[in-house]
Amino acid sequence: MNIPYQKMFDEFNRVLNKTGFTDERADLLARLFTDTTRDGVTSHGLNRFPGFIKQMRSGKTDIHVVPELVGNLGIIEQWDGHLGVGPLNAHFCMSRAIALAKEHGMGCAALRNTNHWMRPGSYGLQATDADCIGICWTNTTQFMPLWGSMEPKVGSNPLVIAIPREEGPVLLDMALSQFSMGRLGLYKSRGEELPVPGGYDTEGNLTCDSEFMVKGGRPLPIGYWKGAGLSLALDLIAALLSGGNSAYQIAKLGAEVSVSQVFIAFDLETILAQEDRRQMMDDVIRDLQEAESLEGQEPPRYPGEGMLNKRVESIENGIPVDQSIWEQVLDL
Amino acid sequence: MNIPYQKMFDEFNRVLNKTGFTDERADLLARLFTDTTRDGVTSHGLNRFPGFIKQMRSGKTDIHVVPELVGNLGIIEQWDGHLGVGPLNAHFCMSRAIALAKEHGMGCAALRNTNHWMRPGSYGLQATDADCIGICWTNTTQFMPLWGSMEPKVGSNPLVIAIPREEGPVLLDMALSQFSMGRLGLYKSRGEELPVPGGYDTEGNLTCDSEFMVKGGRPLPIGYWKGAGLSLALDLIAALLSGGNSAYQIAKLGAEVSVSQVFIAFDLETILAQEDRRQMMDDVIRDLQEAESLEGQEPPRYPGEGMLNKRVESIENGIPVDQSIWEQVLDL
Repeated sequence: MNIPYQKMFDEFNRVLNKTGFTDERADLLARLFTDTTRDGVTSHGLNRFPGFIKQMRSGKTDIHVVPELVGNLGIIEQWDGHLGVGPLNAHFCMSRAIALAKEHGMGCAALRNTNHWMRPGSYGLQATDADCIGICWTNTTQFMPLWGSMEPKVGSNPLVIAIPREEGPVLLDMALSQFSMGRLGLYKSRGEELPVPGGYDTEGNLTCDSEFMVKGGRPLPIGYWKGAGLSLALDLIAALLSGGNSAYQIAKLGAEVSVSQVFIAFDLETILAQEDRRQMMDDVIRDLQEAESLEGQEPPRYPGEGMLNKRVESIENGIPVDQSIWEQVLDL
Repeated sequence: MNIPYQKMFDEFNRVLNKTGFTDERADLLARLFTDTTRDGVTSHGLNRFPGFIKQMRSGKTDIHVVPELVGNLGIIEQWDGHLGVGPLNAHFCMSRAIALAKEHGMGCAALRNTNHWMRPGSYGLQATDADCIGICWTNTTQFMPLWGSMEPKVGSNPLVIAIPREEGPVLLDMALSQFSMGRLGLYKSRGEELPVPGGYDTEGNLTCDSEFMVKGGRPLPIGYWKGAGLSLALDLIAALLSGGNSAYQIAKLGAEVSVSQVFIAFDLETILAQEDRRQMMDDVIRDLQEAESLEGQEPPRYPGEGMLNKRVESIENGIPVDQSIWEQVLDL
């Protein structure tokens, strides 16, 4: 079934208000969850909402706490999230990076002691809405082994790079694991093998079995040895700039809490004339779209292109939802 | 054969002086090429030096031209490299990012119209020498196809992330292609298949054949579809911040010239007390090094660990060189 944008927003808003959020914070959260679902990232939108509300109602999170400025180093600000509401903390810190960028060309906010930010791309889109390039990432608990080992040592550390464009942003929003659980499930449901090795099986052999995770295997990063290095580097930067936890320290906490995040914005408005960048971006995107695809393969897409298509469909036809999850929300 | 550091430096310096470089610029180039070779990246050090000198003596590059400041946007500076000497342009721009970071916590220099910077890691190490986190990348010509296509559309866009540490930096220095030509050659010389697919063969099938490139196949990025997005995002940012060429535009020039680069520095000195970060970094690195390796695999290493080992060996025993290439240098 399909739900109109406004109806979904209102329903999320009602539940958030009932949960005790102030109007302003309920509005923002409802918008983030609705936008996420509208853009086709249902796993981090509607489907995550009931669990998010359960967590908020459990009393374990102070839903009113706001980030505190703990370090102000020129154009880098250091914020303590005080284990508050992940998406609100993240949205606040990207807004700080944008504000700094509007003043200085570039800005950075580093956030420690925060919780899961839901859809990573939300904060990239926040930057492009302000005509900024946005780069942000979060660390996570230890999740993937290094090449040639079975012990999880590095995080999946989702990385976002968002670039504004009049026709809709280029949005890279990716975890550093080669396959998400959702994608593995997709291959399984089709009865297909993975097209490239996704991890180690329990014996330490590379595997294309879509069920390797449920069978106790270990996921590997993009680029295998290369992505493990990238994950480590992003983790260390997040921990250093925020003064917060690294993946190693998060893993020792047992649950994935108190993560560290980095938000960087570059204000394109001051950097390059609209006309110059329009031409360059259009040329590059057109060139990519003209690439001929191999037989039986879908046409190549730029990052964010699928999202923009889904967004248009959702606005035209309503947002597709799983009826049982939607009914859960109505009952919250 | 092994050559002592000072001897190699003096020889490079002599050749550079003879080529017409001023003392200061010859010194810096000699140091970059010698350090690169000392750290084991011989492909971009000694082995590249004769070709570099040939290019410099061809008269096609103005070896005296310096970058020009074309945009000054708070803490982002835009420089035009005027197609000058790649490593000198890059070194200059990282020094600007570092100077801005020392003043404001963070700094960025974007460089357009420049040439190949040789070893990417050089400019990361330049940042860590100044107690800064260094992030830099270059775009390249179109080199790799998108997933499901054979037409090269995105660059290999080497990315560097360097993090200072008292015992020696963490240095991620990686092209976004899954395998370098050097690495493919290594597998070939051992008669081994690639451990994971490295690209498409001429039929468009994923292949682990170490000779797929020489046979006309196409290299794929780390993370396959994911790395293609990362490459595109880095390319667009470099072109936007510098106002220079994208991979698409470079490809139209025929040769890989007039590339765009980004240099970012974060001054750790102002961000975090030495003691706090020492403990965090030591814990993370020790934890990684304790990971048990799979049977028959080498122990997991953090990025830069292999380089530091090579560096120690080179300092103790002299820098290992290919005798015929060394003799070429003596004759230059």
